Amino acid sequence: MQFASDNAGPVHPKIMEALSRVNTGHVGSYGADPETDRAVNMIRDVFEAPEAAVHFVATGTAANSLALASYTQPFQTVFCSDTAHIHEDECNAPEFFMGGAKLTLVATEDGRMTPDALRVSIKAEGTRGVHGPQRGPVSVTNVTERGTVYSVAEIEALAKVAQDFNLPLHLDGARFANALVATNATPAEMSWRAGVDVLSFGGTKNGCMGVEAVIFFDPEKAWEFELRRKRGGHLFSKHRYLSAQMSAYLEEGLWLDLARRANAANARLVAGLRTADMGQFLWSPDANMTFATLPAKIHAAAFDSGASYHLVDGPLEGASFDTQLGARFVCDWSTEEAAIDTFLAHLKA
Amino acid sequence: MQFASDNAGPVHPKIMEALSRVNTGHVGSYGADPETDRAVNMIRDVFEAPEAAVHFVATGTAANSLALASYTQPFQTVFCSDTAHIHEDECNAPEFFMGGAKLTLVATEDGRMTPDALRVSIKAEGTRGVHGPQRGPVSVTNVTERGTVYSVAEIEALAKVAQDFNLPLHLDGARFANALVATNATPAEMSWRAGVDVLSFGGTKNGCMGVEAVIFFDPEKAWEFELRRKRGGHLFSKHRYLSAQMSAYLEEGLWLDLARRANAANARLVAGLRTADMGQFLWSPDANMTFATLPAKIHAAAFDSGASYHLVDGPLEGASFDTQLGARFVCDWSTEEAAIDTFLAHLKA
Amino acid sequence: MQFASDNAGPVHPKIMEALSRVNTGHVGSYGADPETDRAVNMIRDVFEAPEAAVHFVATGTAANSLALASYTQPFQTVFCSDTAHIHEDECNAPEFFMGGAKLTLVATEDGRMTPDALRVSIKAEGTRGVHGPQRGPVSVTNVTERGTVYSVAEIEALAKVAQDFNLPLHLDGARFANALVATNATPAEMSWRAGVDVLSFGGTKNGCMGVEAVIFFDPEKAWEFELRRKRGGHLFSKHRYLSAQMSAYLEEGLWLDLARRANAANARLVAGLRTADMGQFLWSPDANMTFATLPAKIHAAAFDSGASYHLVDGPLEGASFDTQLGARFVCDWSTEEAAIDTFLAHLKA
Amino acid sequence: MQFASDNAGPVHPKIMEALSRVNTGHVGSYGADPETDRAVNMIRDVFEAPEAAVHFVATGTAANSLALASYTQPFQTVFCSDTAHIHEDECNAPEFFMGGAKLTLVATEDGRMTPDALRVSIKAEGTRGVHGPQRGPVSVTNVTERGTVYSVAEIEALAKVAQDFNLPLHLDGARFANALVATNATPAEMSWRAGVDVLSFGGTKNGCMGVEAVIFFDPEKAWEFELRRKRGGHLFSKHRYLSAQMSAYLEEGLWLDLARRANAANARLVAGLRTADMGQFLWSPDANMTFATLPAKIHAAAFDSGASYHLVDGPLEGASFDTQLGARFVCDWSTEEAAIDTFLAHLKA
Repeated sequence: MQFASDNAGPVHPKIMEALSRVNTGHVGSYGADPETDRAVNMIRDVFEAPEAAVHFVATGTAANSLALASYTQPFQTVFCSDTAHIHEDECNAPEFFMGGAKLTLVATEDGRMTPDALRVSIKAEGTRGVHGPQRGPVSVTNVTERGTVYSVAEIEALAKVAQDFNLPLHLDGARFANALVATNATPAEMSWRAGVDVLSFGGTKNGCMGVEAVIFFDPEKAWEFELRRKRGGHLFSKHRYLSAQMSAYLEEGLWLDLARRANAANARLVAGLRTADMGQFLWSPDANMTFATLPAKIHAAAFDSGASYHLVDGPLEGASFDTQLGARFVCDWSTEEAAIDTFLAHLKA
Repeated sequence: MQFASDNAGPVHPKIMEALSRVNTGHVGSYGADPETDRAVNMIRDVFEAPEAAVHFVATGTAANSLALASYTQPFQTVFCSDTAHIHEDECNAPEFFMGGAKLTLVATEDGRMTPDALRVSIKAEGTRGVHGPQRGPVSVTNVTERGTVYSVAEIEALAKVAQDFNLPLHLDGARFANALVATNATPAEMSWRAGVDVLSFGGTKNGCMGVEAVIFFDPEKAWEFELRRKRGGHLFSKHRYLSAQMSAYLEEGLWLDLARRANAANARLVAGLRTADMGQFLWSPDANMTFATLPAKIHAAAFDSGASYHLVDGPLEGASFDTQLGARFVCDWSTEEAAIDTFLAHLKA
Repeated sequence: MQFASDNAGPVHPKIMEALSRVNTGHVGSYGADPETDRAVNMIRDVFEAPEAAVHFVATGTAANSLALASYTQPFQTVFCSDTAHIHEDECNAPEFFMGGAKLTLVATEDGRMTPDALRVSIKAEGTRGVHGPQRGPVSVTNVTERGTVYSVAEIEALAKVAQDFNLPLHLDGARFANALVATNATPAEMSWRAGVDVLSFGGTKNGCMGVEAVIFFDPEKAWEFELRRKRGGHLFSKHRYLSAQMSAYLEEGLWLDLARRANAANARLVAGLRTADMGQFLWSPDANMTFATLPAKIHAAAFDSGASYHLVDGPLEGASFDTQLGARFVCDWSTEEAAIDTFLAHLKA
Repeated sequence: MQFASDNAGPVHPKIMEALSRVNTGHVGSYGADPETDRAVNMIRDVFEAPEAAVHFVATGTAANSLALASYTQPFQTVFCSDTAHIHEDECNAPEFFMGGAKLTLVATEDGRMTPDALRVSIKAEGTRGVHGPQRGPVSVTNVTERGTVYSVAEIEALAKVAQDFNLPLHLDGARFANALVATNATPAEMSWRAGVDVLSFGGTKNGCMGVEAVIFFDPEKAWEFELRRKRGGHLFSKHRYLSAQMSAYLEEGLWLDLARRANAANARLVAGLRTADMGQFLWSPDANMTFATLPAKIHAAAFDSGASYHLVDGPLEGASFDTQLGARFVCDWSTEEAAIDTFLAHLKA
């Protein structure tokens, strides 16, 4: 009954095995090893992007911050959702890596920016000469931090807005696999074909130990990225162990299988909550995260029974019995059907 | 015959096993897991420092930069050796994390600062009111980047200088284990008892996959460090896999065993080179790194036979047959005696 | 008919005279001159703050950014109005000087934060452990960028909120004199007695050539500020010419006289616009700035007649004849009654 | 007998008059005024550079830091003399504005880099892949901080080295006028014709109140510079008062007259010291600064008689009577012959 986060679960065995597989002998460090070449090429294949520049880091915050820093001048502002991970959950890392650039927050209802709201935001910035920040990249998150998913068409529509202002488009794909599974899109469709210039392609939340790829579909920024990665302390000396995670993740579609499992687990949970009819869904639970409100007494009982998840608007302590309190439930590849069913049974009890 | 770097070798099997050991079930992320508590406490025990604040990151550059940033204001300067890793090999990472602070380079003969040279350097800075940078931390590296080792007494002497100016002392211990083994010092003797305030305690170069501990012997800066770590993208979500490496590394003295192997391998290589009498040692090969000059023809033959190591003053191409060219040879825990002997045989042949 | 800005007008003759007065002989540079001592002491007297640390810079952006940087860690966020100059008009300078800290925007109706809105904003930040930014200073602007003025009681109420969270309070007083005149408050009442920790005390917009004082009512941060000022390139070598502006500005209450003139000019303009009844006031024109909507045809006629002011929502071009368009009118000490009357006559014609 | 600094003297009357001349009526702020256009065009004329982009700031540190920041990425290093003002006297401002880039110090004997030493320095950097900083601009100072002057040919030789590595060349010309007068070079010869890409053109030390021009001979970086200037808080709102200083400075060659006076005063001082034969010159006193050693007893007598200048190696207190102590003597446009003669008489007495 663990729904706290998709970074709380274990690493998939095949990824563990890959670590052992490459753990032999001396190889070049800092990425000059055959496993890294292999993983880079697998990503190029998967994304149908033979020219892409691909680099690995170990955390999502590093991937996002370094990707944005490569495209942003310190006197610019990045346009993103008001719920974006880069705004809410990275302790000013993007601002740090970008040298003090700003984030301009686009208000959203469910984590997804609309093209109109994005356009209004962009129009409003960059109009005060040297006095205000200049327009910088647009950053989109899919799966959003509200658990909703942009369709390919929606990404394309945002990309169109960015292009109208000649701005680069970054996609925070910490849960990119879950978004693909939810939309039946191909990697290329959801990225460069839709207009994405640089992608943070997540592995960690979907069964890896700690690896994210930053994929530049136009390799022009690749060398600058490499220098920024080193300068950020994010270049691994024993790099093969990042690469091996990534190659095992991609091998025979493991990454999509894992995302399918997580999304399916979430769907089972959603169906159960719907049946129980105890609260209401805050946003559409499109992938592997569900936000729903439940009465405080139900939360209390759930926690008592050993369930683990986060409340999203304030603590349980002091809440009256019937207050509806929002919660976030996250499933990952390892979430078992039995755990969901047990959890639902507890809720109903 | 792999002497390129101690980050080119494999991970020790016991550390791999530890990764598997903790790879079960859901645990708290971002360090809120029992394995992290365990590893932190093991470090406190090993260092006889029950109050120390201990945090893990994955790279040495992150450890050094974040440790220094926690002690340095952007209008200060850090005193370090002119061969320090933080100066030579981190692509301005310390300057980045410190917000633009400077490094003041203390000239050394063999990578080791003398107390006198350090004192002169500190005296010369901080004397121009607001016009020059203010005095910041002293940063010492042990094992040095020249392969030499400071004794405990030498660290104490440098600490004394720092204390005379009321400056904190950072120790870059990427090869801390090798330094201990070379000096028969205890962890406490080589760190807080000698006057070290914050230690970058390396694991990666000595058999781990990628983990370094930053140890604050005075925990006052710990919370700031945690925020800077997150802001730097260096907080691992699946943190147990960093911690498990560290606990396996410390378990039953594995870390010192590995360093002993590396230092012993280096000693065997040194003895062989000495016997061969083909070149000369640039600096005293105190731990697991040896710098020596050899004739260009010997290098050429060595590389032809498959040996791997770095030349330190310029390329082999174009060098005349008998030119003496400096080289760096590094041994790690996995360097085999046979490889050394074969290599030496090639050199002599 | 010049209402574009209070930085478009000339320097008051008494301030020009002061520049000539001090223009004799050699004196210590970088602030080590008697005129600087004199100006600092005059500020201490005027603010009834004998312990205050006072430093001069030449621009408002420098004053705000350096003041905030002295109180803000790079992993924090500053709470300010969504119309604040530090957000809208300084091209990321605060973020730059603070090393990448964030601004959290508090929504306002008329430029003035309410204590409740501020409290909600502060409560919402600083609750995500290391993941979100930590709470930093509160920054208030008086006169606001909407031309409204906080009363002393309103500043006190905001200070109370800041104190509840143990946060420092910065006041951007680029138009501090105009705010005092509008409220009949004393300098001390509107600053440290109300709970302000550091004040950007403006001179430039009110008749000086280019001087702002940063006043730390608690001098603890003074030395850090001096270093940050130098590091920012904002320490003047020929410092006496900053100081002389400030002392002439304060001498015999010139500064308040100038603000009275500017506010009176604005009141005359407001009265005229009210009589004309051509548009409506967007916000209460409490000091020397007025925001009002007028029909596009009136704007066109005004510009044709040589008037100068800024439209605040979009260009005149393409606007239909009767569209109401917002405009900002600013008066300064040099605005003549005749110019206002002529302008009003043009509008009515 | 004031030889402390060329920023300790007064502003030339013609420059004061220019401030009064422009002090009338409302004009556009932030540089959108006719006086700014006029000053910019005068600079273009004087430098025979009709395409140059010219921007004004108030301090030399701002000029240098912003000029370098426009040409330097944060992962690069700037090559400069070990006595450069940007290294010694700007409290890390260049590092701050460049986002944490490094300075690589080229050792000099008399403040002037030799082409060979510069070449060796550049060669040694930029060779460690992503591990070390990348090569950035070369920054040269003329007049140097040792009072020596580069000839045009020497600047050309350094420019040649920079060009060999495709690096931009910055010239810190805080005392550019004094260098021209010392060498009889034209502004164009000493700048763009010699290979300088961007020049910090000083006014403050040579009779202005506080103005420096940053001259980009290739205007490509001009817009970025404008944004960085605003972001640094260095864009003056009442900009006409910077521009008026500069136009008066250039009008009818005033700037060169003032430099001639300063250099002539220095020559008189040098001749006198030479005659007195009391000490020795540390470096060739080519322009308006002289470094010489004198016995401690002479310094004591000089200070007693009211002379003002800086000792360069340690305090007078405690020095024995006959110890030779180095001193720096600086003349400016206002240094009177009588003061020099009186001072020399005191020394001899």
